[in-house]
Amino acid sequence: MPVKVYLDWMSQPSRAIIAFCLMNKIPYEVVETKIAEGKTRSAEFRKINPLGKVPAIVEDDGFALFESHAILRYLARKHNVPNHWYPTEPKAMALVDRYLDWHHSFLRTGSSTTVFNTLFAPRMGIKSSVNLDESKKLMLFSLKFIDEFYLKDNKFLAGNEISIADLSAACEVSQVLLLGVDLSLYKNLSVWFQKVMAIPEVEKVHQVFFKVLKKLNPQPKF
Amino acid sequence: MPVKVYLDWMSQPSRAIIAFCLMNKIPYEVVETKIAEGKTRSAEFRKINPLGKVPAIVEDDGFALFESHAILRYLARKHNVPNHWYPTEPKAMALVDRYLDWHHSFLRTGSSTTVFNTLFAPRMGIKSSVNLDESKKLMLFSLKFIDEFYLKDNKFLAGNEISIADLSAACEVSQVLLLGVDLSLYKNLSVWFQKVMAIPEVEKVHQVFFKVLKKLNPQPKF
Repeated sequence: MPVKVYLDWMSQPSRAIIAFCLMNKIPYEVVETKIAEGKTRSAEFRKINPLGKVPAIVEDDGFALFESHAILRYLARKHNVPNHWYPTEPKAMALVDRYLDWHHSFLRTGSSTTVFNTLFAPRMGIKSSVNLDESKKLMLFSLKFIDEFYLKDNKFLAGNEISIADLSAACEVSQVLLLGVDLSLYKNLSVWFQKVMAIPEVEKVHQVFFKVLKKLNPQPKF
Repeated sequence: MPVKVYLDWMSQPSRAIIAFCLMNKIPYEVVETKIAEGKTRSAEFRKINPLGKVPAIVEDDGFALFESHAILRYLARKHNVPNHWYPTEPKAMALVDRYLDWHHSFLRTGSSTTVFNTLFAPRMGIKSSVNLDESKKLMLFSLKFIDEFYLKDNKFLAGNEISIADLSAACEVSQVLLLGVDLSLYKNLSVWFQKVMAIPEVEKVHQVFFKVLKKLNPQPKF
C-alpha cells in the first residue's frame, strides 16, 4: 500500500520527501494540501498534524507522522534503501544528522522566514512582525556555511555520496531563487546544487515551483 | 578512552548530553568552554565547531561532532544503549525523531531566544534585534503543545519509556524557570518534568544552573 503524503508543491520539505520516494521507488499517493487555500489549517488536516503544516504522512495502518526529517529517516529505515541515503554506521549517520539538525536553526529558519515574509505573507494578508534584516542575514550566512564548511572537502553535504541531507537542503536552496539570491557567489554550493537539481526526480518535484519562479522572474538582488 | 565533551553548564543541550552519558555509563571528560567568557568564540574552539557553539564532542581518534541531537543519536548508536533511549524499530524511532526535529523550530527557538535576549544579552552588552513578544509566544505555545499533544496519552515525549527526546526537552524546559514561567499551568508537562528532573543524573547536571536560578530568584510572571 502506498504511503499518503500530504503536501504543497511550494513547500520545500514536501518536495524533498517525494524526490526521495521517487528515487527509491517507494510507493506513495499525493494528497495535495494547499497552504494558500487554508487546507493545512483545516480541522480535518489538524487530525494528521495538529501544527497545521505540510508535509505529513499517513500509512495504511493509520500511522501518521509529521516533521520532514523524521519522515525521511523513517522511510529510509523502513524501506531499507541503499545505505548512503541514511547510513547505519554511527559516524556516517552522525554526519547526516549533523546537517539535518543544523538545517532547522540555520538555513531553514533564515530562508523560509525570509521567503514567506517577503513573498507570501503580504499576498495572504498576514502582517509580518519578524526582523527581515536578521532573517536575511541568517539565510546568507547559511548559504556561506554550506559552501565553506559542509562542501569544503566533500561532494555532498555529509560525504561523497548523496544522502537525505542533500535532498532536504537542495529543496530549501531552490526556494531562495524566488528572492533573487545569486547562488553563483557560492562556488562549491553552486556546483553541488546544480548536480542535485539535475537529478530527474528532483527536477520533477520542482515543476510547480519552476512555474512560480518563471512568473515571479526575480532579478539577482543579493 | 572517554569522549571529550566541550560544554557550558548553562547551555541546555550541554546538560542533556552529560545526563545521557551518566545514565548510560559512557565515559566522558568535560572541557568547560564558557560562553560568557568568550571561550566558544575562540579560534581554538572554532576548529572543533566553526559555529562557535557548545556542546561539541571530540573522540580520541579525532572525530569531532556538533549539534546536540546528532551527538545524542550518535552516542546511543555507538554505545548500544538500552533500546528505549533511541529505538531501532522504525516507527518507535520516528516518534523520537519527530520530537527532536520539532524541538528545534518550536521549544528551542522560543525559549532560548527569549532567555538569551532577556537575561544574558544585556549583561554581555549585546543589543537584541529580535521581536521578544514573538519568541515568548512561541515559547508558551511550545510548552502548551508538549502538554496537550506529546504528553496527552504518553508518560514520556515519544511513548511510555524515557528517550533522548526527554533529556533534550527537560534541559530546555528547566531553562525557562529563569524567566519565571509558571510550569504548574501545564498539568501533564509538570508531572513529566518533575519525573525527569528527579532522576539523580539529571539533577546532577543542573547543579550550576540551580545556583544561578537561586541567585536570580525569578517570581512567577507568565
